[in-house]
Amino acid sequence: MPVLSQQDRLRVVLVSTRNPLNIGAAARAMSNFGIRHLRVVNPYEAAFREARSAVGASELLRSAEEYASVGEAVADCALVVGTTAGRDRELQHPLRRLDEGARIIGKHLASGPVALLFGSEKHGLSNQELSHCHWLLQVPTRAEHVSMNLGQAVAVCLYALVRELEGASRPAKVKTERSLKKSKNAQRARNAKHTQPEKTGPATAGELERITEVLLEALGASGYLNSISSASNQEKLRRHVRRLNLSADDAEIWLGMLRQIVWKIHSQKGPAK
Amino acid sequence: MPVLSQQDRLRVVLVSTRNPLNIGAAARAMSNFGIRHLRVVNPYEAAFREARSAVGASELLRSAEEYASVGEAVADCALVVGTTAGRDRELQHPLRRLDEGARIIGKHLASGPVALLFGSEKHGLSNQELSHCHWLLQVPTRAEHVSMNLGQAVAVCLYALVRELEGASRPAKVKTERSLKKSKNAQRARNAKHTQPEKTGPATAGELERITEVLLEALGASGYLNSISSASNQEKLRRHVRRLNLSADDAEIWLGMLRQIVWKIHSQKGPAK
Repeated sequence: MPVLSQQDRLRVVLVSTRNPLNIGAAARAMSNFGIRHLRVVNPYEAAFREARSAVGASELLRSAEEYASVGEAVADCALVVGTTAGRDRELQHPLRRLDEGARIIGKHLASGPVALLFGSEKHGLSNQELSHCHWLLQVPTRAEHVSMNLGQAVAVCLYALVRELEGASRPAKVKTERSLKKSKNAQRARNAKHTQPEKTGPATAGELERITEVLLEALGASGYLNSISSASNQEKLRRHVRRLNLSADDAEIWLGMLRQIVWKIHSQKGPAK
Repeated sequence: MPVLSQQDRLRVVLVSTRNPLNIGAAARAMSNFGIRHLRVVNPYEAAFREARSAVGASELLRSAEEYASVGEAVADCALVVGTTAGRDRELQHPLRRLDEGARIIGKHLASGPVALLFGSEKHGLSNQELSHCHWLLQVPTRAEHVSMNLGQAVAVCLYALVRELEGASRPAKVKTERSLKKSKNAQRARNAKHTQPEKTGPATAGELERITEVLLEALGASGYLNSISSASNQEKLRRHVRRLNLSADDAEIWLGMLRQIVWKIHSQKGPAK
């Protein structure tokens, strides 16, 4: 599968990370989004491989590669991208928003390995570390609060990248995916234990008309409507029922409910008089 | 600014969160992406407001609103969306991928408040909690590792949503055409003689819950349901009512009809025995 091999060419590089929990969280997000290659440069805590935050990603974390410098960590990569909160000192590099950056990274992954660097929690990437980067990537945060949690920044960047690799945002694909998903969901719904919503598509006009009739009867019997033979009342009610956009399955259920209610009202009628 | 006011209509609702650090992390991501309204339902740790992980977002965290139930937390919202890892049991609801879901949420935020729910770290949202949702949102993770860290899931969802609100990287025509058609339909509806559907926008969760309650009463009194206190019956009915996509105007009318029916059944009860 092409998507998989592209994802396999990405290296997530965590530089001088202080909190091992953040390394674990990054590993978890990587695993969620199908990115396998984690590289770690000078982590503050040598025992980061045991981080409990790597829920479901302990294997990925254990197989992380450790490097003494950014230069070594990115040596095999044809494109090196640093992430930044976009502070002034870093503007010696071209700065790209995540959207645009993810598109470019996606293209490069088609041909060779790409490194995506994340700096330390406190100071981000140093100028020396940044000097290894071709350009910088910025998550579009609010200007007043640009500093993201490291694990969250990794998750957001990888989501945007994988979304790009899957071509989810391309108009042509949207439809295919949606219809595929639709049939998959329908399949799943059919397999679901408790209910099967919308299995049968929209209700027919005949089904809606039966609901309208029973509802009309309930409203007449309960005194909500003075006259159920009034054309205007009937039309109003018909429009109300049409607007519900019922599926065939749901229509059947509503019809059953209403019939029972009508039956109850009528069954009490005699003695109540 | 239009974008800001849209963002201000979103309520992030954290349900039964166990780890206060995750609430803090969610608050930080919210602050990064300019979302201010945090609601918390039954947090495990009462002292969550002090969570150190809310770096730069302590004010947002302190002003979080606390609720005893999902129903109360979403009562003012016209659209309620639950997030899910997409496990089998939840497929009683329509499931949308983050991309598509963010688009729809974005549209709803133009007119009224929307709730985005995140369940507990271990179990996600319960069936009872899910029954308050109109549909479910899924971050497209790898099938083998769907379970995301809560703070990371919040960050990814808010990134996708804010990106949508900013209209970044729109894939050109598809949407334009669709929205054109939609506004034409809305225009036609406005011109229709007899009714003015959706004049007031979608019904709020509170209005839908009142309909659910009265319907439940009608079905109990009529014998359609054996037990109206059964949680499973309540959840099923809640989902049925959510699927009707009622406008605020229509919701009011349905509530009136159902109340009259319930009144009629009860008024006959005595003599019928």
